[in-house]
Amino acid sequence: MSIITLLTDFGSRDEYVGLMKGVILSIHSAATIVDITHQIDRQNLMQAAYAIHGSYRYFPAGSVHLIVVDPGVGTDRSLLALELHNHYFVAPDNGVLSLLLDEGLVDELIDITNSEYFLDTVSHTFHGRDIIAPVGAHIARGVELRQLGDELAPADAIRLTNIRARTADDGNIVGRIVAVDHFGNLVTNIEHQMITTYGLANQTKRVVIQIGSHTVQGMDRTYGNGHSNIPMALIGSRGYLEIAIPRGNAAQQLNVRSGDRVQVKI
Amino acid sequence: MSIITLLTDFGSRDEYVGLMKGVILSIHSAATIVDITHQIDRQNLMQAAYAIHGSYRYFPAGSVHLIVVDPGVGTDRSLLALELHNHYFVAPDNGVLSLLLDEGLVDELIDITNSEYFLDTVSHTFHGRDIIAPVGAHIARGVELRQLGDELAPADAIRLTNIRARTADDGNIVGRIVAVDHFGNLVTNIEHQMITTYGLANQTKRVVIQIGSHTVQGMDRTYGNGHSNIPMALIGSRGYLEIAIPRGNAAQQLNVRSGDRVQVKI
Amino acid sequence: MSIITLLTDFGSRDEYVGLMKGVILSIHSAATIVDITHQIDRQNLMQAAYAIHGSYRYFPAGSVHLIVVDPGVGTDRSLLALELHNHYFVAPDNGVLSLLLDEGLVDELIDITNSEYFLDTVSHTFHGRDIIAPVGAHIARGVELRQLGDELAPADAIRLTNIRARTADDGNIVGRIVAVDHFGNLVTNIEHQMITTYGLANQTKRVVIQIGSHTVQGMDRTYGNGHSNIPMALIGSRGYLEIAIPRGNAAQQLNVRSGDRVQVKI
Repeated sequence: MSIITLLTDFGSRDEYVGLMKGVILSIHSAATIVDITHQIDRQNLMQAAYAIHGSYRYFPAGSVHLIVVDPGVGTDRSLLALELHNHYFVAPDNGVLSLLLDEGLVDELIDITNSEYFLDTVSHTFHGRDIIAPVGAHIARGVELRQLGDELAPADAIRLTNIRARTADDGNIVGRIVAVDHFGNLVTNIEHQMITTYGLANQTKRVVIQIGSHTVQGMDRTYGNGHSNIPMALIGSRGYLEIAIPRGNAAQQLNVRSGDRVQVKI
Repeated sequence: MSIITLLTDFGSRDEYVGLMKGVILSIHSAATIVDITHQIDRQNLMQAAYAIHGSYRYFPAGSVHLIVVDPGVGTDRSLLALELHNHYFVAPDNGVLSLLLDEGLVDELIDITNSEYFLDTVSHTFHGRDIIAPVGAHIARGVELRQLGDELAPADAIRLTNIRARTADDGNIVGRIVAVDHFGNLVTNIEHQMITTYGLANQTKRVVIQIGSHTVQGMDRTYGNGHSNIPMALIGSRGYLEIAIPRGNAAQQLNVRSGDRVQVKI
Repeated sequence: MSIITLLTDFGSRDEYVGLMKGVILSIHSAATIVDITHQIDRQNLMQAAYAIHGSYRYFPAGSVHLIVVDPGVGTDRSLLALELHNHYFVAPDNGVLSLLLDEGLVDELIDITNSEYFLDTVSHTFHGRDIIAPVGAHIARGVELRQLGDELAPADAIRLTNIRARTADDGNIVGRIVAVDHFGNLVTNIEHQMITTYGLANQTKRVVIQIGSHTVQGMDRTYGNGHSNIPMALIGSRGYLEIAIPRGNAAQQLNVRSGDRVQVKI
């Protein structure tokens, strides 16, 4: 079994994802390739960081996860290979691995430099195809990370700043919208535990959520408990606070988007 | 060979489909997973019912088909496992299996309750990942349906009402638009046989199709026989009446959409 | 190892691509199926011709490539099977194979007529499912092209006219936009070599590119070297001239689209 996942901001219009798969299969024909998503908002590193962090654990141990959200392609930014919890990750050194690196259990982190594992010709514009895909295929075939380059101290890898929600001095939680999903639901970076730490049940009426100029009072357990066209709050399937509008589109109706501030008062 | 297909209204923005695949491969690493579509209109059960009914027979016997169009997720709606014509189906009990159940050849129908085959933690918002995917993977590995829960009489499963086209008292056929495809073609629920029963050849000039405020006279055999920007009618690849506008977009130009009424006069 | 790739204009809304995969797996359950893209602009044969030409070489030798951009489906247009550079291609005879056929190294070209390798019932509207998919699966299983029909002289296959860029009498290069990618970048049919033949380095300031009413001066090596919202030119990952706007959308901001003229003055 060797599974390789792909997470990019390439969209679905072009042959870019298909070419990565061709390169992988040319090196490792038995690989099983799975798309996590290719619809990360363009160059949105925070969104990609949460997407891979919330996804990898659903794949079998030994999976190789390739992340190509790469505004710095062709410049001198590095590429990293990471082993963590028996999963492997290959990504640009641009902060997209922030949440994984901060889990504190890095088994190995490598600054990828060994071009022996790259395509023969490396373009300036598509390292996903020319470096990340072939390196990922080689890892899935059993190449050890240390063969790819020199070790890097986890502290030296680039981190995204302000990526996590925080509890302010007044006890309120301040976070952000990380992603707007297909249904218009707003996925935040406010973890389940930040709210329930206070000993509140999920259905509590006491929580007040502020988002843009809107206020949501209390939390529900699931979408089906909400009322049509009334904003509701719940803990989504990632384990984070979500704002949804049943049979509506929260992002459009509340006029908010990725990156916008969300505040929880308890 | 074990093939698992996916049909959802999840769209392609998010990691939801990828996570279902991760869960499946964690249980059954040799599964071949095929996307039928993830672009069912949000919570459109009729559209999903026709899509799975028109698709499953193109897959090998023994395939497992997972359908996640699930407005009632997290409420007390049941989940069903169905065996029919040597194919397996897992879906919410919300009518999405209506057309299959009414084929009258149900081999087995189970109300899924055995949490031994679920993920360890089941969320309130994503049973596709937490129940349907793992159950499907176990079926593909050989778990028998009766191990999943108790039998349910097919008559006790929920049906969608008015899902089929019908012949009215005046002899006219009354149906609906089930889906608007990528090309803007209007796929209806009016079966080939309802029209040809009358002994009419496909190319007949005598058929008159009423859709919104528009009338289409006669039917053609294929798109290539139509004229640019003139609405035409034909039997589509599903075996149902379709309205198309060659080099145009019928849904936009006729200003109609899924659910709208279509009438055929003969 | 047997890989089958799919390149269509079907989009992602419908079950059409899924059905092709079901048909393939019903014939050849061990096939690995890869989507190159399904977002070719509707019936844009030139775009599809460049997409397959720029993609196939990234897949392993022996791969079978199925191209379904087929405005003439159901009319009397032929279907072709082509062997070239140890790759196989199945496509309508409508010019979509133009660039491949003109590489001059055709090993075999067949006019597909042997219905033994088709589905039992062939619709008038979906030869991708009923002919191209099953024929492709049989090729991947080892059926020889000559079993599919009679040989056709490459010169007798249909070509797209004016598909390539050309150097005009005044020494300027005249080409077209072939595709607008997910990022709004404009991919042209002006090959790298047409520009560098003149002995110019990539970064040269001397090249002037005219596109619509806009002018781009000089070329860069990669996106990261550009300036926000200023149009830039570079050689893209296909090896062709591209126009991009860093952190912007070139197609929208320059108000151009596929098929529009691009001129390079040196």
